[in-house]
Amino acid sequence: MSERNVAEIDLHNLHVLDPLIGKCQQLVREVAIPYQWEVLNDRNPEAIPSHAVENFRIAAGDARGEFHGTVFQDSDVAKWLEAVAWSLCQAPNPELEKAADELIELIATTQCGDGYLNTYFILNAPRERWSNLAECHELYCAGHLIEAGVAFFQATGKRRLLEVGCRLADHVDTVFGPARDQLHGYDGHPEIELALTRLYEVTHEQRYLTLAHFFVEQRGSEPHFYDIEYEKRRQSCATESGGLPWMLRNKAYSQAHLPLSKQRTATGHAVRFVYLMTGVAHLARLRQNDQQRQTCLRLWQNMVQRQIYITGAIGSQSAGEAFSCDYDLPNDTAYAESCASIGLMMFARRMLEMELDGQYADVMERALYNTVLGSIAFDGRHYFYVNPLEMHPKTLRANGIYNHVSPVRRPWFGCACCPPNIARLFASIGHYIYTLRADALYVNLYVGNRVEMSVGGAKLRLLMNGDYPWKDEVEIAVESALPISHTLALRLPQWCSAPAASLNGERINCEPRNGYLHIHRTWRQGDRVKLLLPMQVRRVYGYPQVRNLAGKVAIERGPLVYCLEEVDNGTELHNVWLHADSQFSLVDGTGLFKGKILLQAEGVRLQHTQSEEAALYHYDKVPGQLEPQRLTFIPWFSWANRGEGEMRIWINER
Amino acid sequence: MSERNVAEIDLHNLHVLDPLIGKCQQLVREVAIPYQWEVLNDRNPEAIPSHAVENFRIAAGDARGEFHGTVFQDSDVAKWLEAVAWSLCQAPNPELEKAADELIELIATTQCGDGYLNTYFILNAPRERWSNLAECHELYCAGHLIEAGVAFFQATGKRRLLEVGCRLADHVDTVFGPARDQLHGYDGHPEIELALTRLYEVTHEQRYLTLAHFFVEQRGSEPHFYDIEYEKRRQSCATESGGLPWMLRNKAYSQAHLPLSKQRTATGHAVRFVYLMTGVAHLARLRQNDQQRQTCLRLWQNMVQRQIYITGAIGSQSAGEAFSCDYDLPNDTAYAESCASIGLMMFARRMLEMELDGQYADVMERALYNTVLGSIAFDGRHYFYVNPLEMHPKTLRANGIYNHVSPVRRPWFGCACCPPNIARLFASIGHYIYTLRADALYVNLYVGNRVEMSVGGAKLRLLMNGDYPWKDEVEIAVESALPISHTLALRLPQWCSAPAASLNGERINCEPRNGYLHIHRTWRQGDRVKLLLPMQVRRVYGYPQVRNLAGKVAIERGPLVYCLEEVDNGTELHNVWLHADSQFSLVDGTGLFKGKILLQAEGVRLQHTQSEEAALYHYDKVPGQLEPQRLTFIPWFSWANRGEGEMRIWINER
Repeated sequence: MSERNVAEIDLHNLHVLDPLIGKCQQLVREVAIPYQWEVLNDRNPEAIPSHAVENFRIAAGDARGEFHGTVFQDSDVAKWLEAVAWSLCQAPNPELEKAADELIELIATTQCGDGYLNTYFILNAPRERWSNLAECHELYCAGHLIEAGVAFFQATGKRRLLEVGCRLADHVDTVFGPARDQLHGYDGHPEIELALTRLYEVTHEQRYLTLAHFFVEQRGSEPHFYDIEYEKRRQSCATESGGLPWMLRNKAYSQAHLPLSKQRTATGHAVRFVYLMTGVAHLARLRQNDQQRQTCLRLWQNMVQRQIYITGAIGSQSAGEAFSCDYDLPNDTAYAESCASIGLMMFARRMLEMELDGQYADVMERALYNTVLGSIAFDGRHYFYVNPLEMHPKTLRANGIYNHVSPVRRPWFGCACCPPNIARLFASIGHYIYTLRADALYVNLYVGNRVEMSVGGAKLRLLMNGDYPWKDEVEIAVESALPISHTLALRLPQWCSAPAASLNGERINCEPRNGYLHIHRTWRQGDRVKLLLPMQVRRVYGYPQVRNLAGKVAIERGPLVYCLEEVDNGTELHNVWLHADSQFSLVDGTGLFKGKILLQAEGVRLQHTQSEEAALYHYDKVPGQLEPQRLTFIPWFSWANRGEGEMRIWINER
Repeated sequence: MSERNVAEIDLHNLHVLDPLIGKCQQLVREVAIPYQWEVLNDRNPEAIPSHAVENFRIAAGDARGEFHGTVFQDSDVAKWLEAVAWSLCQAPNPELEKAADELIELIATTQCGDGYLNTYFILNAPRERWSNLAECHELYCAGHLIEAGVAFFQATGKRRLLEVGCRLADHVDTVFGPARDQLHGYDGHPEIELALTRLYEVTHEQRYLTLAHFFVEQRGSEPHFYDIEYEKRRQSCATESGGLPWMLRNKAYSQAHLPLSKQRTATGHAVRFVYLMTGVAHLARLRQNDQQRQTCLRLWQNMVQRQIYITGAIGSQSAGEAFSCDYDLPNDTAYAESCASIGLMMFARRMLEMELDGQYADVMERALYNTVLGSIAFDGRHYFYVNPLEMHPKTLRANGIYNHVSPVRRPWFGCACCPPNIARLFASIGHYIYTLRADALYVNLYVGNRVEMSVGGAKLRLLMNGDYPWKDEVEIAVESALPISHTLALRLPQWCSAPAASLNGERINCEPRNGYLHIHRTWRQGDRVKLLLPMQVRRVYGYPQVRNLAGKVAIERGPLVYCLEEVDNGTELHNVWLHADSQFSLVDGTGLFKGKILLQAEGVRLQHTQSEEAALYHYDKVPGQLEPQRLTFIPWFSWANRGEGEMRIWINER
């Protein structure tokens, strides 16, 4: 097991300059965050009413009315606050900070004397606190509030929300634990575990780590806590299901069916799974717990080897927003929730910090440049919850297997977990670019940025340039005033077959280790590392056990997955074939696609007469003929920005 | 519009001798009917309890207890009785007839003084009769009881159940109708319409036809009857849905959203649709109503041109057991209910009687030899409710999109509409073989049989021989004692590209009309018509708008659709390709397949190493190599008779 310590990059000292991810971060800061604030305050008539802030006002006694929304509505506010916190590191915004301060004050007012805080229970069922962990998300909401407190403190130095979080965590610590008079339970939706480890890192309070460990280890033990509390509640449920609620019947949904040490596959609700594993991986490192580490390695492996989409998405099915089984990756009925890919990036980050292996960054990059980047519209005001890999709008409305799928991004959702999660992910992307350890600075993502960090007491300053992932060259320039002896470990992406690096113009020939090129040196101002990552257009094929991909090919260039869209290629994308030997040409995008690279290649289309009288089945020959068609591929993350239409990632090849 | 009169074949005078359909009829008679009687009486511990007979016992006061089952549980008993009736035409069975007589006596005892009969309402809600047509199936159950009464009378001459049916119909006729004090409604599940037309044919009571017409014409008119009765009930529902019930929100589900004359596509619950249309087509002919006829033609056309599976199944989705939209025909998530294909045969029969066009018989044959024949196991005791065209058992249990699908036939169902429906269909198959009209005797199906019928006052006796659909020659021999001048119209199946016919050894050269070869002659004993229907193995391709079939081929021989099954071809059927030019060889089946013809052809399989460590995605080339494999195709109807495994109809072609 590798060492315990990883230094987190202070986001005040990291400026994303990247034309793709940086522009998205700017979009989040300048459009999405203000937009979401309007929605959370129910001031946007186009969006589904949120009521999330109003719930706090009512709970604080500042307004009258009833609680509205899901039991976890509070978490939307917390995630938004976290996004605000990280955005303030990038750009001061006194007006936004004032709004956040006032919101924090409101939240603090809502907190009960004993530290409890949850507007649903305060308003609806104050006596039923902690009585339905399986269904009611109290610890989940607490976790998000704690994360927001940590972020706001790190971003602004203001302790108000951090203290609210600590009081809440302290309260939780009295309610839950191994003592006889404590609850031996754990939340239906993991989050508290990863939040407590974050809180520990800021407060150095061991109790928080112990409590997180307790939650992780308690999970899945028998007799099942959810059954015990259900009987204690006299079998009452939050959801009127007319029987044993879903969370009790399907404990795997909450990763509560088995102790983690006994789990063999990624299972259940995909977001719950990655949130839990993020906490477990963090804990495993901080407490140097090898059993937990083995659990992380094992379940990660199953997930990325058998259950992940090419887009870095997880969760093959709508039922339970869940994993399905090994090699079941349907393209059109995929759930592939935005939050699941965000959670996957969080999990990958913690795995990287523990294992320092490029494979974790490969997955992180795949999720970032595809599902996560695609989950927000170019306008910053529309979001995908579900991220299908194939879209046929006409059928979508007619067949119930697509009830969960939307052909375009939406202004908001009844369950609005994704939009603020997307905002906080982009606002905090600086946490994913580097992993700073005593032995080396690992460069995980080639998102252009300027950064300053403390290495052995000295300030290391770097400028990462390039136009990733459009161009294949990345330059890292050292800008520190004083020489610093350290190792720079450059990730060599799995998608790149022939990477090359040079230092001050001289080719570097050392062997990569665990997917990173390690360059040890006393770094001086003006040193320049150039990394060449040739971005051939590559064809991707699924492992033959994946029946959804048989006979099909996907196109990637660099970390980007490409797709065909109706607006460029016409309808009936199922009638399009790419030649097995077609060459691709790169095309500079224009208009909405300015700055992006599109691809073109020759294919064929099955042309047929659109006849009202045509029979459904035809003997002996396909009714139509193949005709050449030049196909235009766009980066998949940018689909559905030009209205509704067909889309395909996996296309026929012949 | 063609003439009004069609003579129904008296099933006493038709003996099915066919080695395939006849054997299945025998299986129904000797195994399924006794088996189902045990289940309906809850004497089979392996089957889900039915309680259907017990409900009648309780309602009659012969037993104590509560009603159990669906609101339409009575219909299972009625359909079983109808199957018994037709089976008694084929083979006397005093013991079975006695059981049926006793059951009929029990049913008669249950009937209320005013003619009302429905054990759910009698036992559970006697004051709520006719208050929830949308959800409660009262007229549906009444219809099935009426059909059973008609059948039992036709089969045995006994009037007891027919009278029960008439009293029930008379009661319905007082409750429903255009008068101010009558209900202007119609049932959520059509069936009464087709039953009343049947009852009219036996009783010649015009009122029944008028009432059926009323139900048909009332449907879909505004204000919607279902909304009116909902308000009358003070918004109470049969199903605890916590809101407006499904049937009110989705009126198209019950074909109640629009008057039929305004409907353009087959829509909603597939069984409801074909049951309704069966009644409408029958009415349109009997009352010579051209608007209703146009509705039938239009909706039939949409259904068979855009929404029917190659297996003669309808209903592309589980949600609402319903049609989806034009050209949406998923193979693995198909609903394709057995009852829907049975209803489709009923609808086709009535269309044939009205239109005398071979296209209706083509669809009837397709449904019979594929979905309907496949819905019952070789053992007669297991049934499919849902009939997928592709099966991957491993995924089935993991992904919620397959919740409705079973990999094997089941002993019974909680909603057990299919098993007794399958039984009555095979028992009454004689009604589908011929359409007897004054202008001609139309031979629709080449199910071997001996029949006697009255033609212009004389007895026409025919013997149809052959070994259809295994062999390509059918012989029809005239066995009548006296010469009879009439037209014999032989259907030329759409699947046959070069049919040939001869009369007493001389080739017949007349042009077919509407899919039938019309042979007019004074028929004499010893006349022999031979029909040669060459059964090349044929490749079938979907119309290119059907995206589920792109790049795929299905194999047919005669009316039979073939498939690959795992037991013959190994797992991962998605990795199998059939060459575009492979020749097929015919193989005589053995064991379970004795008497059946299997097909073989050369294909290829993508062979790959089954590695624990294999990556999910591979660059540049498919990880595996194509290797030759001899593929074995079985008639699809016989799949899943050798345990659970993968199955595919539509396979890759290269």
